[in-house]
Amino acid sequence: MATDLQSEQSALTADQATSPSTGTSTNRSTGERYQRIRAMSVNIAAPLTPEDCAMQTMPDVSPTRWHLAHTTWFFETFLLKEQPGFRPFHSDFERLFNSYYNSVGEPFPRHRRGQLSRPGLEETLQYRQHVDVAVSQLIDQGELNEHQRYVLELGLHHEQQHQELMLTDIKHVLASNPLYPIYTKNTATNNNTEASLSTTLQWSETPETIVEIGHNGKGFAYDNESPRHRELIQPHAIADRCVTNGEYLEFINAGGYQQPEHWLSLGWTAVNENGWKAPQYWVRGDEDWRQFTLSGLRPLDLHEPVCHVSYFEADAYARWSGKRLPTEFEWEHAATANPTGSVFADRLMESGHVIHPRTAGASDFTGNVWEWTGSQYLPYPGYRPVSGALGEYNGKFMCNQFVLRGGSCATSSDHIRLSYRNFFPPDARWQFSGFRLADSR
Amino acid sequence: MATDLQSEQSALTADQATSPSTGTSTNRSTGERYQRIRAMSVNIAAPLTPEDCAMQTMPDVSPTRWHLAHTTWFFETFLLKEQPGFRPFHSDFERLFNSYYNSVGEPFPRHRRGQLSRPGLEETLQYRQHVDVAVSQLIDQGELNEHQRYVLELGLHHEQQHQELMLTDIKHVLASNPLYPIYTKNTATNNNTEASLSTTLQWSETPETIVEIGHNGKGFAYDNESPRHRELIQPHAIADRCVTNGEYLEFINAGGYQQPEHWLSLGWTAVNENGWKAPQYWVRGDEDWRQFTLSGLRPLDLHEPVCHVSYFEADAYARWSGKRLPTEFEWEHAATANPTGSVFADRLMESGHVIHPRTAGASDFTGNVWEWTGSQYLPYPGYRPVSGALGEYNGKFMCNQFVLRGGSCATSSDHIRLSYRNFFPPDARWQFSGFRLADSR
Amino acid sequence: MATDLQSEQSALTADQATSPSTGTSTNRSTGERYQRIRAMSVNIAAPLTPEDCAMQTMPDVSPTRWHLAHTTWFFETFLLKEQPGFRPFHSDFERLFNSYYNSVGEPFPRHRRGQLSRPGLEETLQYRQHVDVAVSQLIDQGELNEHQRYVLELGLHHEQQHQELMLTDIKHVLASNPLYPIYTKNTATNNNTEASLSTTLQWSETPETIVEIGHNGKGFAYDNESPRHRELIQPHAIADRCVTNGEYLEFINAGGYQQPEHWLSLGWTAVNENGWKAPQYWVRGDEDWRQFTLSGLRPLDLHEPVCHVSYFEADAYARWSGKRLPTEFEWEHAATANPTGSVFADRLMESGHVIHPRTAGASDFTGNVWEWTGSQYLPYPGYRPVSGALGEYNGKFMCNQFVLRGGSCATSSDHIRLSYRNFFPPDARWQFSGFRLADSR
Amino acid sequence: MATDLQSEQSALTADQATSPSTGTSTNRSTGERYQRIRAMSVNIAAPLTPEDCAMQTMPDVSPTRWHLAHTTWFFETFLLKEQPGFRPFHSDFERLFNSYYNSVGEPFPRHRRGQLSRPGLEETLQYRQHVDVAVSQLIDQGELNEHQRYVLELGLHHEQQHQELMLTDIKHVLASNPLYPIYTKNTATNNNTEASLSTTLQWSETPETIVEIGHNGKGFAYDNESPRHRELIQPHAIADRCVTNGEYLEFINAGGYQQPEHWLSLGWTAVNENGWKAPQYWVRGDEDWRQFTLSGLRPLDLHEPVCHVSYFEADAYARWSGKRLPTEFEWEHAATANPTGSVFADRLMESGHVIHPRTAGASDFTGNVWEWTGSQYLPYPGYRPVSGALGEYNGKFMCNQFVLRGGSCATSSDHIRLSYRNFFPPDARWQFSGFRLADSR
Repeated sequence: MATDLQSEQSALTADQATSPSTGTSTNRSTGERYQRIRAMSVNIAAPLTPEDCAMQTMPDVSPTRWHLAHTTWFFETFLLKEQPGFRPFHSDFERLFNSYYNSVGEPFPRHRRGQLSRPGLEETLQYRQHVDVAVSQLIDQGELNEHQRYVLELGLHHEQQHQELMLTDIKHVLASNPLYPIYTKNTATNNNTEASLSTTLQWSETPETIVEIGHNGKGFAYDNESPRHRELIQPHAIADRCVTNGEYLEFINAGGYQQPEHWLSLGWTAVNENGWKAPQYWVRGDEDWRQFTLSGLRPLDLHEPVCHVSYFEADAYARWSGKRLPTEFEWEHAATANPTGSVFADRLMESGHVIHPRTAGASDFTGNVWEWTGSQYLPYPGYRPVSGALGEYNGKFMCNQFVLRGGSCATSSDHIRLSYRNFFPPDARWQFSGFRLADSR
Repeated sequence: MATDLQSEQSALTADQATSPSTGTSTNRSTGERYQRIRAMSVNIAAPLTPEDCAMQTMPDVSPTRWHLAHTTWFFETFLLKEQPGFRPFHSDFERLFNSYYNSVGEPFPRHRRGQLSRPGLEETLQYRQHVDVAVSQLIDQGELNEHQRYVLELGLHHEQQHQELMLTDIKHVLASNPLYPIYTKNTATNNNTEASLSTTLQWSETPETIVEIGHNGKGFAYDNESPRHRELIQPHAIADRCVTNGEYLEFINAGGYQQPEHWLSLGWTAVNENGWKAPQYWVRGDEDWRQFTLSGLRPLDLHEPVCHVSYFEADAYARWSGKRLPTEFEWEHAATANPTGSVFADRLMESGHVIHPRTAGASDFTGNVWEWTGSQYLPYPGYRPVSGALGEYNGKFMCNQFVLRGGSCATSSDHIRLSYRNFFPPDARWQFSGFRLADSR
Repeated sequence: MATDLQSEQSALTADQATSPSTGTSTNRSTGERYQRIRAMSVNIAAPLTPEDCAMQTMPDVSPTRWHLAHTTWFFETFLLKEQPGFRPFHSDFERLFNSYYNSVGEPFPRHRRGQLSRPGLEETLQYRQHVDVAVSQLIDQGELNEHQRYVLELGLHHEQQHQELMLTDIKHVLASNPLYPIYTKNTATNNNTEASLSTTLQWSETPETIVEIGHNGKGFAYDNESPRHRELIQPHAIADRCVTNGEYLEFINAGGYQQPEHWLSLGWTAVNENGWKAPQYWVRGDEDWRQFTLSGLRPLDLHEPVCHVSYFEADAYARWSGKRLPTEFEWEHAATANPTGSVFADRLMESGHVIHPRTAGASDFTGNVWEWTGSQYLPYPGYRPVSGALGEYNGKFMCNQFVLRGGSCATSSDHIRLSYRNFFPPDARWQFSGFRLADSR
Repeated sequence: MATDLQSEQSALTADQATSPSTGTSTNRSTGERYQRIRAMSVNIAAPLTPEDCAMQTMPDVSPTRWHLAHTTWFFETFLLKEQPGFRPFHSDFERLFNSYYNSVGEPFPRHRRGQLSRPGLEETLQYRQHVDVAVSQLIDQGELNEHQRYVLELGLHHEQQHQELMLTDIKHVLASNPLYPIYTKNTATNNNTEASLSTTLQWSETPETIVEIGHNGKGFAYDNESPRHRELIQPHAIADRCVTNGEYLEFINAGGYQQPEHWLSLGWTAVNENGWKAPQYWVRGDEDWRQFTLSGLRPLDLHEPVCHVSYFEADAYARWSGKRLPTEFEWEHAATANPTGSVFADRLMESGHVIHPRTAGASDFTGNVWEWTGSQYLPYPGYRPVSGALGEYNGKFMCNQFVLRGGSCATSSDHIRLSYRNFFPPDARWQFSGFRLADSR
């Protein structure tokens, strides 16, 4: 998932793609799924002003309007461009909304995306409609070949990745404004309920064992989840829920951000250069901590999982507490044995709740918050990038990043898998990222 | 005038302010003038989208929306705030739209102005209206004291300075977009007319003489134009018009941008670090040069004065041609003996023309393009900054800048004076800045 | 080993240290070993001028004089300081020559080490002697306790690490000078012999297997080599020798440095920002490539292993050739089955040869050139840092680095082990670093 | 004088050069003067170690050894190179010791001068001797033509400029070392004498007057001192001595470094970015201020002129005290009417005193400390750069610098003139720079 610099790292080998039968009813369901996923992007932008959609508050953030255009560009470039008779919406958009595909031409500089006032929001929505009409026609005609079905599938997952980035980027944009604007007045799922207390932390023990890791080939997956292979796991224990705000606050109050001994060397540099004193979006009030959320400034809920921490902070907390982060293999093994989570972006939006983590609980291996693992992002044994433009950069980001697992409250429920490997540099904090502890035995 | 970092450097000692009699008719004319000048700011923004008004394409550029708010903040802070019963439009705006007055509180970081999506354009226009109503009432009541009349006068000149910055900032914003959006389809005043040829350059000779320099005390002036004092001018000649695009093109074609011997040491560094090959907004086509204007990309007009050049470029051209730039005193002396120009922002807008220089002619000491002088910006002998917040920073920019004189096509005709001292660092190019030559005798 | 920022990451749990019996003969051999290793540092500096010893040509490089002092500081601080009656050579040296032990006090800024002219070379050598006399007395007294024996052992390995850094830093210093000064006129071991041709590359096949990885507890090891544990290795093949200059030249000639598709995203940035066109110290002549060595500029020997390449370059070459780098576990497994190398710093110096790689051959898993692996540097399962100042930063560098294995021609033969884990950021090139290929089966 | 980047800005039009008659006695005196001035450079380096001579502690500082070589390069390049039969000492030195003459070839990067260990100090001294022998022979032959006499003269003034830079650079190098090494144990001229109290400050009044400014053509001068011309001076008063440490301390104690209202905008930025709290080389002790001098750390002498302040600090002090700095014309006019100073580098060295300012007194317009003026460095009316390589960059530094006048305790007595224009950027502090006050009337 990662930033859009990375978000197209993923591809699907053709034989892994779903192979829908070509009957009319399938076309109809494919078309409806396309409409549904595409509509969610527009829904995410709906509460925003044109100016909100134009902001880039740090180089990693892209304007909402850019996300809306770039995801559209993906279908136009890889699916429609070679269709006979298709006319591009605007001849300059191919370069303007290319993220980093060198084979498609030199991309517009990433850090300058927030300096483009045109095309405006309205024209961008027209661009989306122009492409949606053409794609829908193509689907309805029922003559998509295998590669086209693959590109369509890939484009929808790509769109869902960018939906999560839209939400995290919007949060960064609004939080950068001293007026603390509110994205939505909706509340979180667990506010004001008696059940909103995090459970006592339990440890799950695992002896040395050989496990199967990676995608099993059923349904869609990115190529970095393959090949499925065997890994030897060492004896260890893993926590059954994530670290909470309350637990993390103890680390802060114990002076954790002032003590170099808990930190990686690069992490200590990051703490000092950025002036970190708490997770991102925590705001120190006169008497207490508050946190900026998509529904505005709120009191810090001690039972929620700590969120918007970097790998450095997760790792420092773990050292301070005498534990460590799980490897991505330990995580995947543990997740397989646990129930699926329920805090996902699509469901929150449908039920009228704000995109925000729920109280940390034992069923949250997926959803709620991404979980940093102690694994640097590297290829699986036998990994091969696919060929062509779509696979141009597969694996090119496998350096100096750490793997996150499980998705978050900003991920769609049909986008995440247990084998899904997200990755970010260790100082990234603007995603909904938390962590759970593990320990060697 | 300068950037807004500098644009409030100016103040008026109380006794220099106009002292209108307090009859009703005066109130009415003051009120009308206030309305007219304030309306021009809104008119400048009228062709723009909300997104256009939000962009900051380099640190020196402020979003149009910021200019609209900041000029309003000026009246609110220095005129209305202490009025009994006045309620500020929004309690946070005082800090948000402060440019650099430390005594008013810590300003919002200048380079982050383009990261604020709120207040949006609509709310900003409401803010203007809120303040305009209160100021107009104050004027109509006819009870402005001397200090209030001074602040009102200063605020209107301040507004006019920012109107010029709005125009140059908008030009920078639009030029930064590969789509080259058009601000207005209006054409320049001298397009397609037979009279649009620059005149043959003539030299005006002056022997050694002592001249009076600075503002004569009649009407409004900034404090940096005072005190009026005597200067000894050396024997010299000064050109009767500015250097044209055609003449400057010869310098380019002769390899001027590749030859260090014409350049100041800092200038040569600027050429290489920024990759300068021509004035800003010149675009090299396959066969010819074009220039980006507020009415879009157009063929380069060889008879227009060269514009959007830095001091470094003006100085290098002068050295290359065996001449030099005039001092600001030589310029002021020459300007006094010449007719007033006619290419000003207010007149161009009234007559439906684009803001763009006209063919270089002999009557353009004022208007058309600002003229770089060879004088670094320093205080006049006996200069004293005024006291209080408004004068807080008078003179604080008198270091490492060069003086420009005469105003430009983006200046209002009732804003400029022969004694007016504009100033910018020697690498600034986004203003409508050109130059004329001089020579020692 | 790594840079000195990292070089003290290593510690020895007390029970891993050698436990010499305390007889006089043991004291004598310990004393002799101490003298021998300490003397080698001085020998490395012997061909240099005082000015050579003062240079810091990039932040990663430390002046030779600093290395001489810092290794001495180690013994003074951790072994002598608490001895009754010991007087430090100079009260300010504790801070001046601390590399990064926060618990010892705030270190002098690393990047400013080349700005210290005092203490000079002569005084630094006196400092060494002062400490050597005290340490030798301590050894001779035969009353070292267990902790002291551990610190002594650690200090000697620390000294050997810095000896390698001295050699690589000196090479960088001399190569930065347009005069290309010669460190020694000695030649390499394999110059002008018929046997100096690299062998045809052979592949060694391994099926899936579980192997023991890490130090076996016999003799000295750093803590990052522990605990010894089991790893599952996938089916793969590994080359029996390193990639040669000749092979790497094909990559260059095929345009490898101009084609983004072979490079990691961060690697492509490094190529362009640093202007890399070949390995470090390669010099393009009019007709051929030459390389700067410690015996001066010499024709490029196509049969030597390619050296002074970054991880990015090793990885790009591997992708270009359709292969990959081995994991550190694959490497350790293969090395265990192969004969030990013979190209080490101590032996080269003893036999009067220059420190330079020898023709790539099948017996060079250790010595000759360090080998980049595809493994990011992470803790072994169950790794625990030791406590106290010496272990202060164990593991603090386990982030965004890659593991190198096997030692180089600049490593001492009694310093390297098959379990030895060196680590550097992926853009480091000034070490004697090469690589061998592997492939998945 | 300025940094060496600037120090060759100066040239002598041929007719301004001394025109010695060509008799043997003249040759002998020229030869002796050459030997004397050249010897002083070596004497300045005499107390230093080879390592001291190699340091570059900031980009503006050059290693002493570089100064020794560069001044030699000047004679070799501009005087000897075209002599028949002359063999350069080393073919690579032409590029290595070129400061910035583009017409002589691309100079070695300035900021990397401290990364060259070769040629070492000994070889550099041999280089000097090689050139000195050849120059002396040329002088003795008595056949120097006019241009050669001019170059010789220029080379000696160039050498003296670099002697001052050697002293200030050495001070910076030693002060950067926490050991605070002592350059010489010699004391200052006025230590421990009863007469060492600064006099009460007196003001000298001047009405409006026209004065002659610039060099009168007798003896050597740099071209920036010409042409001599008339300037109109406004009514003003000027202080008869410089501001003292004691007076400046009042500014510090009054919070001057914490109050933005006294500072130029760029100055306030410099204060905060550099963490300035006092003049350079002032060291805050537990109970009092000390200052680092070339004879080590000493108590601050309140009666000495404040030294090592930037233009920004001089200007801020002046504003704080309700005064201003004199213009360079006011200074030159006042200096003409006052006795010559006596605190110069050559005399201090001859009499065995340290290079350090003496108690501020009324006869110090020349010597003691350079005095910042309020004038930015611009060409005099009618200034023309000379042609050819030596004049290549005349005037290229006339931008964003301020003029200093009068020389310092590090200037040779036969190098300074009342018309001498030194110049530095407003944030430079490592020269012996102080200031006196003026006021408008």
